[in-house]
Amino acid sequence: MPTRQMTSFVLPVPVTAEKPSLQDNTADLDRLRHALRGRLPDARPLEIPFARIVPLCRRFRQAGFSGVALVNDLPDRWVLADFLPEWPAQLPAMALDLGTTHLEATLVDLLTGQVLFAAGCENSQIEYGADILSRIHQATSVRRQVHEVVDPSFIDPGLAVLRHSIVACINGLIAELASGSGVAASDIRALSVSGNTTMAHLLLGLDPFHICREPYIPMVNVVEPMEGRELGLILHEAAPVWIMPSIGSYFGGDLISGILASGLAATEQTRMLIDVGTNAEVVLGNRDWLIACAGAAGPALEGGVARMGMRAAPGAIDFVALDPETYVLEVRTIGGAPALGLCGSGLIDLVASLYLARIIDIRGKFRDPDQESDPGRAAFMRERLVVRDGQRAFVVVTASEAGADDEVLLEQIDLDAMIRSKAAMYAVLATLVGQVGLAFSDLTEICVAGAFGNHINPQRAITLGMLPDLDLSVYRAIGNSSLQGAEQVLLSRSARQECLDIVSKITYVELNVNQDFMIRFSGARFIPHTDPSLFPSVPVFAEEKG
Amino acid sequence: MPTRQMTSFVLPVPVTAEKPSLQDNTADLDRLRHALRGRLPDARPLEIPFARIVPLCRRFRQAGFSGVALVNDLPDRWVLADFLPEWPAQLPAMALDLGTTHLEATLVDLLTGQVLFAAGCENSQIEYGADILSRIHQATSVRRQVHEVVDPSFIDPGLAVLRHSIVACINGLIAELASGSGVAASDIRALSVSGNTTMAHLLLGLDPFHICREPYIPMVNVVEPMEGRELGLILHEAAPVWIMPSIGSYFGGDLISGILASGLAATEQTRMLIDVGTNAEVVLGNRDWLIACAGAAGPALEGGVARMGMRAAPGAIDFVALDPETYVLEVRTIGGAPALGLCGSGLIDLVASLYLARIIDIRGKFRDPDQESDPGRAAFMRERLVVRDGQRAFVVVTASEAGADDEVLLEQIDLDAMIRSKAAMYAVLATLVGQVGLAFSDLTEICVAGAFGNHINPQRAITLGMLPDLDLSVYRAIGNSSLQGAEQVLLSRSARQECLDIVSKITYVELNVNQDFMIRFSGARFIPHTDPSLFPSVPVFAEEKG
Repeated sequence: MPTRQMTSFVLPVPVTAEKPSLQDNTADLDRLRHALRGRLPDARPLEIPFARIVPLCRRFRQAGFSGVALVNDLPDRWVLADFLPEWPAQLPAMALDLGTTHLEATLVDLLTGQVLFAAGCENSQIEYGADILSRIHQATSVRRQVHEVVDPSFIDPGLAVLRHSIVACINGLIAELASGSGVAASDIRALSVSGNTTMAHLLLGLDPFHICREPYIPMVNVVEPMEGRELGLILHEAAPVWIMPSIGSYFGGDLISGILASGLAATEQTRMLIDVGTNAEVVLGNRDWLIACAGAAGPALEGGVARMGMRAAPGAIDFVALDPETYVLEVRTIGGAPALGLCGSGLIDLVASLYLARIIDIRGKFRDPDQESDPGRAAFMRERLVVRDGQRAFVVVTASEAGADDEVLLEQIDLDAMIRSKAAMYAVLATLVGQVGLAFSDLTEICVAGAFGNHINPQRAITLGMLPDLDLSVYRAIGNSSLQGAEQVLLSRSARQECLDIVSKITYVELNVNQDFMIRFSGARFIPHTDPSLFPSVPVFAEEKG
Repeated sequence: MPTRQMTSFVLPVPVTAEKPSLQDNTADLDRLRHALRGRLPDARPLEIPFARIVPLCRRFRQAGFSGVALVNDLPDRWVLADFLPEWPAQLPAMALDLGTTHLEATLVDLLTGQVLFAAGCENSQIEYGADILSRIHQATSVRRQVHEVVDPSFIDPGLAVLRHSIVACINGLIAELASGSGVAASDIRALSVSGNTTMAHLLLGLDPFHICREPYIPMVNVVEPMEGRELGLILHEAAPVWIMPSIGSYFGGDLISGILASGLAATEQTRMLIDVGTNAEVVLGNRDWLIACAGAAGPALEGGVARMGMRAAPGAIDFVALDPETYVLEVRTIGGAPALGLCGSGLIDLVASLYLARIIDIRGKFRDPDQESDPGRAAFMRERLVVRDGQRAFVVVTASEAGADDEVLLEQIDLDAMIRSKAAMYAVLATLVGQVGLAFSDLTEICVAGAFGNHINPQRAITLGMLPDLDLSVYRAIGNSSLQGAEQVLLSRSARQECLDIVSKITYVELNVNQDFMIRFSGARFIPHTDPSLFPSVPVFAEEKG
């Protein structure tokens, strides 16, 4: 049996006890408890949940009073969860990134840290509302009519519907992970969940009513692990569920997970983490301090802004190049599938390319082909710029090019939203850095999380003035850090502790009431910026100045 | 608000928190947790059960973020159970003596220690079996056919029936206590239960299969407090339930409770506790050591032995006097009701009187009226001794005297059982004292618990040779010590700790395999004893010697 120090969420502990006799008629459970005494790594109290007593005693007896106890490692106590006759071949646990639109999960072996299987699916709650606010609306169907609820245990029927929906959705993932790894769902011994504050509330059945109402108070930010059965999940009954703690209504456990995964709070160097999901969430700091903000005015580059916007999924245009000399337009879709829309990185590529090719001006407005002096550009503009609903639009892919029924368009309204988004993003970053008296050049690394981070070309984002004009080596795409953080807490006690430390350490800056942010936001509503000296690597076209 | 140190099972803790604002948007539960920090008497971790989160947050908010937290004081942690808007007028909790035949309960105010109401009822499980063994038989209907249960969570249908029966029975008492005190059942904030090991198993739904099979192993002796809702009780959902720990299959929590209530483990003087219920259980010791045994061969004076035996209830003959000169027989019933049978104390009075009046001999046999030389005695014997089923019997009360349809008889078979019982009792006491090298005269006090202790006349028990021939001032009737101990653990943390200390300190002597006991038992099967010098206060009638 392994001897190295394990600190996973569930700890297997070899136990051998004397068999009962007339000379030693200790009760079964007391026998197990005594045998475990001193076998645990520290003196935290050992709890045996009432519901576990019968199965524990039976399994202990069936195993001949010798085997392996499975003990959940909770922050302030051990919890005896199960008893196995022998050392297990593997100890599967599930990490879950509970996104507003999408769920991603992995099954991890707690004994080795290996990922056994991965699966994902759409968030089934989308049926009841695409975004957080509409979900809260749905979950407070009664509360919106009756201001104060008299029965303290009252559960809004709307909330119950959403909770059942997400529980069924997660149970589907559990079943998929289990069958994909050849284990039973009840063999999954732990779960960690990274989600924003509202998604966590909806899973836990907590009233989200005050989350979206000033002063924006969640019911819970830090919650003790509960058992899988308490949530209605088909994991092992006593599987502990780690809900990533959150900081506030708009700064959720998904980002705490990201801070953990990026190692931001663990190094001496000051670094930055950018997570662009439904909101843009940004954290700045090092092992001594952390400051964060979430852009409620964020860019929402994950498909919500542009009319043709979509998630980074097959058929999404994730790469666009437009040669500013030849006007050759190159478009690539994820999986090479027929183009369906633009994901965030495709949108950034496209707008940056349109700017560099001078199809749009510094305000992000389509230029008038009739005012264009360059004949090649004028011809391209006439070919690609169309008028739809009285507004100019750029045909990214024609219907015939797309091999689909619909063309993929970038409309002026999309462009305007894009400019607001990129301006908000830059203003968020600049405000945060300014708050602590630093400059962008003081940052040794900027981690960009999520599908956004995986797909965007930082150079193009710099061209737009969305990201600061730093050496490209400063930017690091770290992937789904929400899921990675969830995996880490399954495997390491110090990771679990770090999550709690992050919560108590972090300073949250509310941007909605921040004057500095509003000024910076206005200044950033040009490409790349009203002050082009901030972006020396980006060409500025003289004729359009002023 | 009171300032004295409270250590009750549920602690009211005044809490005041800042109201939420944009400057302080801590989540509701985190706000409550922070406000409680430092308000608890010690640094044990504070647990907030998942199921309590919604009602806690709602009540905290409704109370304006200021009020009184109710915190359960468990051995190794605090558990946040509820939140009240103001200091409660009272904090009711229930103490329960869960007997095999009878339940006794009181409602206690945790704030003052006052008993608010008392109630009792028959154990509803009697329908499924009068004694412990038949209940175990009923609870293991499947196990008796299938030796090993494969599904570790399997609950025997017989056990489920018994569990539901006792839960309904206790819920009836809860309702009675609540209405009697003018509170809601859900206002009852805690419960403590003293019962023998089998009764505890049946309430908790634990498999009692091995309790009555060598080597007699219970599933559990020491169990952490669970919540009322986990048992299906109609108390407050989060009411902690204290199950008195037991020592083994035949030494249950009712006696731990008795040790606590008698103060046996708390004084320097060596004392003895005798609890005669379904078994005779005896404990000897002081604050340094405790030794105990349970007489599986015990006297069962609570109504099980004599054919006319019954519990100490209205209509039970609890006092008998027979003048050895005039042969005037005086009989008294509980409540002055028509005589229905004999309770333990009445039986002891009767047999001792019959011995002193020389109606029975030292072997406990009815003497032959025809062999009797004293004419008065002979006349009385002819009047009262009858033959039933070929055996002599003594008419305690004739049908007409009883004012009932049936006479109350003492038959030879009853007398024989009584002699065995009294012999077992004395042998148990003598063996236990002998084990530690003491004599009866070393004891400063003998506490006699239960209805038995309340009703018997120690002088009569000495006459029979059932209790040692000590000064009567040594004997102290302490009443229902099982219930008293249950009340004490509700009110005092040190009482709860003492229960656990008693369990770890006590030495249990198994009498079924004890040679010394068997020898002493044989010697005690005469009135008062084969060695009358042990009972100097008891007259020995010369003619009958040898």
